[in-house]
Amino acid sequence: MPSYIFGKIELDDTQLQKDLEIVKGFPRISEEYDEFGTGVWINNSLWNASQDATDTMYRDFDYPAKQTEYGRQLPYISKLVTENFNLEYLKMVRTRNLIDGMVIPHKDFVELNKPKNQYFRVFVPLEDNQHAFHSDEDNVFQMKKGEIWFLDAAIDHAAVNFSTESRIFLCLDFAFPGDFHPSEIFTNKALYNEQIKPTIAKREQLKPEAVEHMIQSLSQIIDKYNFKDVLFMLSKIHFYKDVPVSAAYDWLEEITRRSGKEELLDKTQKLRKYMIEKRDLGERFSINDWKELTA
Amino acid sequence: MPSYIFGKIELDDTQLQKDLEIVKGFPRISEEYDEFGTGVWINNSLWNASQDATDTMYRDFDYPAKQTEYGRQLPYISKLVTENFNLEYLKMVRTRNLIDGMVIPHKDFVELNKPKNQYFRVFVPLEDNQHAFHSDEDNVFQMKKGEIWFLDAAIDHAAVNFSTESRIFLCLDFAFPGDFHPSEIFTNKALYNEQIKPTIAKREQLKPEAVEHMIQSLSQIIDKYNFKDVLFMLSKIHFYKDVPVSAAYDWLEEITRRSGKEELLDKTQKLRKYMIEKRDLGERFSINDWKELTA
Repeated sequence: MPSYIFGKIELDDTQLQKDLEIVKGFPRISEEYDEFGTGVWINNSLWNASQDATDTMYRDFDYPAKQTEYGRQLPYISKLVTENFNLEYLKMVRTRNLIDGMVIPHKDFVELNKPKNQYFRVFVPLEDNQHAFHSDEDNVFQMKKGEIWFLDAAIDHAAVNFSTESRIFLCLDFAFPGDFHPSEIFTNKALYNEQIKPTIAKREQLKPEAVEHMIQSLSQIIDKYNFKDVLFMLSKIHFYKDVPVSAAYDWLEEITRRSGKEELLDKTQKLRKYMIEKRDLGERFSINDWKELTA
Repeated sequence: MPSYIFGKIELDDTQLQKDLEIVKGFPRISEEYDEFGTGVWINNSLWNASQDATDTMYRDFDYPAKQTEYGRQLPYISKLVTENFNLEYLKMVRTRNLIDGMVIPHKDFVELNKPKNQYFRVFVPLEDNQHAFHSDEDNVFQMKKGEIWFLDAAIDHAAVNFSTESRIFLCLDFAFPGDFHPSEIFTNKALYNEQIKPTIAKREQLKPEAVEHMIQSLSQIIDKYNFKDVLFMLSKIHFYKDVPVSAAYDWLEEITRRSGKEELLDKTQKLRKYMIEKRDLGERFSINDWKELTA
């Protein structure tokens, strides 16, 4: 099912702004290195399993999440969380920021076999950014300040921020012991509201001859050194042209096929499988494991 | 003057490895956000002005650098520093890592008027990485484990690591009150050795028709959304083809001129000026300040 909006919280801008200034002052503790994104990702744990603010990895545990030192520094956001959300099933709360970057189209959980519908990831933007988008198999959309969104990471999805401006989201991870209704994440079920209209990006058409032109041009210049640059360039296009989120993989396959460079075509096919089809548990894949020039 | 090698330290691999494992466990405190690089930059302060391990900014101060908590966790590297280098003029020691990333060609200090020859930045690689390179106006080169290099940041230069493997360097910043000889950074001046052969990358020729082809292809597809991708793709080429470090700016100017997109040509000309010609003190420049699509 695609991502959807199911509530909205009224935010007090004055109080929120004070907390966001504190968030922006947190040290930028980077995530585990991820080859499939560019730009600056910042995650800060406000509640988690270990109470350690530098621990940003989501995992299973069977006790209530604990507030970290970062969480305790944010009075308004803390109130927002504890007053609106059901702490019983809340496992993790993070602030997340993506600046001048992108995560290329991918599925999460494709390597796992357990039912994924007991995990429920919720985003609440704390800032608006006109240049930041998410996408899934249905749409390119913009989550707006205070909106409450379910983001389905089990289908093809991607994210981008074209600007160098901040885009802070609250990310809340819930885990339920069995079936549940999304309204169960709220302390007050009346907050659940399916009637809020999402902001869907109006994308331009991309003419078939423009696609052909691009594929032909890039097939002439693609090589091992710029393969990743081309991948990211292509992955970005669906955010502003009306093509499927995974179109980049189709184009890249055709570009590398026409290039006559077998190694690049092979890499593309493996990349597509890894990102949006099937990964084995623990399987690792690297875009940049070519034998490069050595001095 | 281009960068040059002027010494070599024999390293004890067993002891060094223990310290490097500790370095790799330090939290990844990111730098101030920099639009002109990609990939993962990690800097950890071992000695600095404030004794605060999270303080990674070089600045002037007139007392000896102090060891931070990170520095104190590294017995072998500490010994390496204190036994070999003149602490009197040593202002900062950092470990630096660049993974799967690049810094595009630029000059440092172009906004400053003070004599820069009293600052002396020294790199000592602690790991070899066959896929990591530096470049300047003369060469593309690889600094090897234990070698002692002066890196001239006042001329056009760039850095890349094509791989997702680590590349830890020790970066030592010295500041002298007046004229000095590079050997003065050592406790034992006999360490100074101009006879060590640097590892210069053997780059392939780039045929004029290949350049023309690339320029023509990219002029057909460049737009505001992929401008930065194209810039980085072009900037990378000089590391493996024998063209000047700043060739990317010439090519990008011709590409944007042929594209007929005035806004892109204007951005290219301002970018070149900012990166390698002249910045005013405090001047800021952003690649990504276009008016992008908004939903």
